[in-house]
Amino acid sequence: MKIVIVGGVAGGASTAARARRLDELAEIIVLEKDQYVSYANCGLPYHIGNVIKERQKLLVQTPERLKQSLNLDVRVGHEVMAIDRHQKTLTVRALATGETYQESYDNLVLSLGATPIRPPLPGIDHPQIHVLRNIPDMDAILATLDAGASRAMVVGGGYIGIEVAENLIHRGLQVDLVEMMGQIMATLDPEMARDLQYHLEAQGVKVHLKTAARSFAPVAGRLQADLSNGEVITADLVIMAVGVRPNTALAQACGLPIGPRGGLQTDKHMRTIDPNIYAVGDMVETESVVTGELMLAALAGPANRQGRIAADNIFGRGSQYRDTQGTAIVKVFDMVGGSTGASERSLQRANIPYRKVYLHPASHASYYPASSTLHLKVLFSPDGGKLLGAQAIGFDGVDKRIDVLATALRAGMTVFDLEHLELSYAPPFGSAKAPVNMAGFLGANLLRGDHNFWYAEEYPEKTNLGCLIDVRTPAEYEEWHIPGAINIPLNTLRDRTVEIPTAQPLFVYCRVGFRGYLAYRILVQLGFEHTFNLAGGMLTFSSFYRTAYSTGQANYPAIAHAEDQVAEAIIAQSS
Amino acid sequence: MKIVIVGGVAGGASTAARARRLDELAEIIVLEKDQYVSYANCGLPYHIGNVIKERQKLLVQTPERLKQSLNLDVRVGHEVMAIDRHQKTLTVRALATGETYQESYDNLVLSLGATPIRPPLPGIDHPQIHVLRNIPDMDAILATLDAGASRAMVVGGGYIGIEVAENLIHRGLQVDLVEMMGQIMATLDPEMARDLQYHLEAQGVKVHLKTAARSFAPVAGRLQADLSNGEVITADLVIMAVGVRPNTALAQACGLPIGPRGGLQTDKHMRTIDPNIYAVGDMVETESVVTGELMLAALAGPANRQGRIAADNIFGRGSQYRDTQGTAIVKVFDMVGGSTGASERSLQRANIPYRKVYLHPASHASYYPASSTLHLKVLFSPDGGKLLGAQAIGFDGVDKRIDVLATALRAGMTVFDLEHLELSYAPPFGSAKAPVNMAGFLGANLLRGDHNFWYAEEYPEKTNLGCLIDVRTPAEYEEWHIPGAINIPLNTLRDRTVEIPTAQPLFVYCRVGFRGYLAYRILVQLGFEHTFNLAGGMLTFSSFYRTAYSTGQANYPAIAHAEDQVAEAIIAQSS
Repeated sequence: MKIVIVGGVAGGASTAARARRLDELAEIIVLEKDQYVSYANCGLPYHIGNVIKERQKLLVQTPERLKQSLNLDVRVGHEVMAIDRHQKTLTVRALATGETYQESYDNLVLSLGATPIRPPLPGIDHPQIHVLRNIPDMDAILATLDAGASRAMVVGGGYIGIEVAENLIHRGLQVDLVEMMGQIMATLDPEMARDLQYHLEAQGVKVHLKTAARSFAPVAGRLQADLSNGEVITADLVIMAVGVRPNTALAQACGLPIGPRGGLQTDKHMRTIDPNIYAVGDMVETESVVTGELMLAALAGPANRQGRIAADNIFGRGSQYRDTQGTAIVKVFDMVGGSTGASERSLQRANIPYRKVYLHPASHASYYPASSTLHLKVLFSPDGGKLLGAQAIGFDGVDKRIDVLATALRAGMTVFDLEHLELSYAPPFGSAKAPVNMAGFLGANLLRGDHNFWYAEEYPEKTNLGCLIDVRTPAEYEEWHIPGAINIPLNTLRDRTVEIPTAQPLFVYCRVGFRGYLAYRILVQLGFEHTFNLAGGMLTFSSFYRTAYSTGQANYPAIAHAEDQVAEAIIAQSS
Repeated sequence: MKIVIVGGVAGGASTAARARRLDELAEIIVLEKDQYVSYANCGLPYHIGNVIKERQKLLVQTPERLKQSLNLDVRVGHEVMAIDRHQKTLTVRALATGETYQESYDNLVLSLGATPIRPPLPGIDHPQIHVLRNIPDMDAILATLDAGASRAMVVGGGYIGIEVAENLIHRGLQVDLVEMMGQIMATLDPEMARDLQYHLEAQGVKVHLKTAARSFAPVAGRLQADLSNGEVITADLVIMAVGVRPNTALAQACGLPIGPRGGLQTDKHMRTIDPNIYAVGDMVETESVVTGELMLAALAGPANRQGRIAADNIFGRGSQYRDTQGTAIVKVFDMVGGSTGASERSLQRANIPYRKVYLHPASHASYYPASSTLHLKVLFSPDGGKLLGAQAIGFDGVDKRIDVLATALRAGMTVFDLEHLELSYAPPFGSAKAPVNMAGFLGANLLRGDHNFWYAEEYPEKTNLGCLIDVRTPAEYEEWHIPGAINIPLNTLRDRTVEIPTAQPLFVYCRVGFRGYLAYRILVQLGFEHTFNLAGGMLTFSSFYRTAYSTGQANYPAIAHAEDQVAEAIIAQSS
């Protein structure tokens, strides 16, 4: 068996290692156009920021080491120019010498990755306009920084853009982040991305939303960028992080079909239409677990697993890729944002009905030090409550909740199942009623008809049709309240129902939604049938609209009603 | 509807709050013998250590507040003396006045908790021998400490004992921990508890295993404890943390049946044999999700959920408790130990067949700062690979992995399913091949026949029957190796097969099991069919037997072959 793998990073390296373990005697050749294989590409932004201090830490694998440990024939600087599917041969060019040669294969695995997009803007080829995908890209950025740079512009507010922006701040630069959409982090819904944006801004990154770069021009050794909003930014370097395009040219040239999203098509065995050619990683299209739509998921986890699956199938094992959830996470200075499954936006696009809940539990028992507020959004089907997606933002424990919800979603669990999960609890780690349990309670209460919401995005059109009631304390109400709201604190509600109009719908709200829920239960059972509670309370409202609560900081120090917060947390925890 | 709830902490408070939400008009009375309701009992050890600085933080709920927010009639200092099931009345004693009165109920919920065991030892009633269950217990311990104490003895190495020992060290005391079994933390298997023990010792706690307290005697204002091993310890205070006994006397007296484990029996609706009496929390027996055995699970999460379920059923909602997994976690200074499902010990006791894997992945990408080694053990069925239990020990990310595995176990997932989980990955949070994925790979490889283990507990009987081969580097081998092992580093293995005996089984090992796995694959395919790889490698071996690796420290600084460790991690991550 002779296996040739084109591309030696995540997917390709996984394929090679798995193939060797399955067959000690196979001939396994890895052809990599660049000089580096199996390096830690997700670490690149952090070496720029000197968080990962030694470049060497990203580069432990070499062809020599892979020869020794896995008996792989790894050839760096070898680019595949053409595939002859009929003859099962490749035309390979050794870049150092320029010579080309033929290499045969029994099975071929394509793991060519993707290339950062450089939009065709005037001046885009300026050497101080960088992308960040591989080690040479990183080295080029570091060289520009070392030459003396004080201001950078990052174009694109996705993972790479945000990670680079943070790390350039760590390097002491002034940083502008320019994003065409009205939000950063398009994998999150806008209201969930908002706190990350506020936090970025609080850390010194100037964020320009709904703004595109129009053109670049060299000015006195620096770069002048003209933006779509009329602004002009002069910077020492620009990082383009506006997405990637799958490297499919080689595959297309030999007649392998490209899918609607621009990636190579494979079956669940990662096999293309050619039974001897497999493809894995960022270059392929996969199906979404939730929507069934084809997607390009430039994610390390799926790439690695696909590599294993390709190797399995070369050796006749029928393992299958189980579609992509899109689980992802990003660190933004002290904050973290993560998601799994479908976003609200993608459910709408796919015409999939859903319901949603928001909650803001403490990251761990609020009486134990260093607890902070977690912001959680969970999407599920209206009939049956099957999980469709989840998003979390916060300072601590975001990864844990996303991973639990990712596992639950993969298992086909419902919000009713989340109610019963038995998760680890001690005060430093969580709450007796875990945030994921609470999400289940909220969703299950909604589907059972025990709770009904109004949503921040319905303000003010819907709330204008009824009476808006703030059930927080007078002190909280005084500090800030939704314009038009009257204040009837929860603790006085039972005694003041005579003040409440009976002929119109009631829109109640509190800080996080819990006191509002108690108010909802009281009012509905006392005959106010058309009552709605603001999902996620003031905190979610403050992600839709900028309020005094919209700070991007842990625990909203601007409005520190510590006692009320603790009371809420303890009620939630112990009851 | 008149509901009386006996006991106002976790289970009782949950019942009351849920009942109020379900019925605004119900009369809900909570009778609590002590002076405190719905306090943060899991926080008690941390206030002793001044980690939680303000006592008030543990005590936010008061009868007044619960009246205001939930319209509950909470009576502290009221003890129920008898239940008349026929008349549906209680005899209640107001402890402050000594007066008794009758209280009727439509539905009664018992949430009486459990009482710390004070074994009947000579001198056990000495006032400086404490337990820690509630606020008065905590206050008594604090008073003893404030009176000037320099040495403490903790009896019992479970959650409470360990948490108290840590917090007494924080207070500057000298601490001896005495445990009758051969390990601390009986919910973990012994080899998993070992690192926690080493870490406790490294932090200054003197651990005495297989040792019981025999008697206590006052000596010059202090306490002298005679231990079963002949040692005598003189301390200023003793904390008894040897377990709890369900408070079932009241229930027994009115004829409600007690189960084989000493707890009250209920059905899945938390209903006793009396259709109007429910019971929840530490006083009831529940079934294990995995073994089906009845168990007493003194855990906050189950108590809270049972309270909700009792309230549901009072109002005719048929919700059911879905049995107990026993998910639990404990912080031990900088380390954390957690578990879910069955332990190996409990599977053996229940005669349930199982297989097991050990692994030691990095808590997050090893090239990103502050990564540490995680120790993971996963138990699963031999046919089908269904998850049966998991244990994790480490410095970071233990809670996350236990929660993911708890969710997967609850969902009925197999090790084959773990291979496909799509968990959140960025360098600060994990690895592209997540530790839980890796556990799946190991388990699935084993069940598919791609990998076979020998286990540390089989040393030396089994390994004496064959050839023991250390496949680590010569430097690692020189530093420490298993007596009798020869050294054939993985990287030279393919060239040195002539040196390997063909007539006897081969027992290979490395540091964590990964290089051993590669060696296994090579050897088996080259005809050495009777090859076995040490599960978990030297690190698991060092939990069974004390070696130079047995330090209880992050990343085993005593043997820091940084380069090899990184190589292992990167191979594992990228391939």
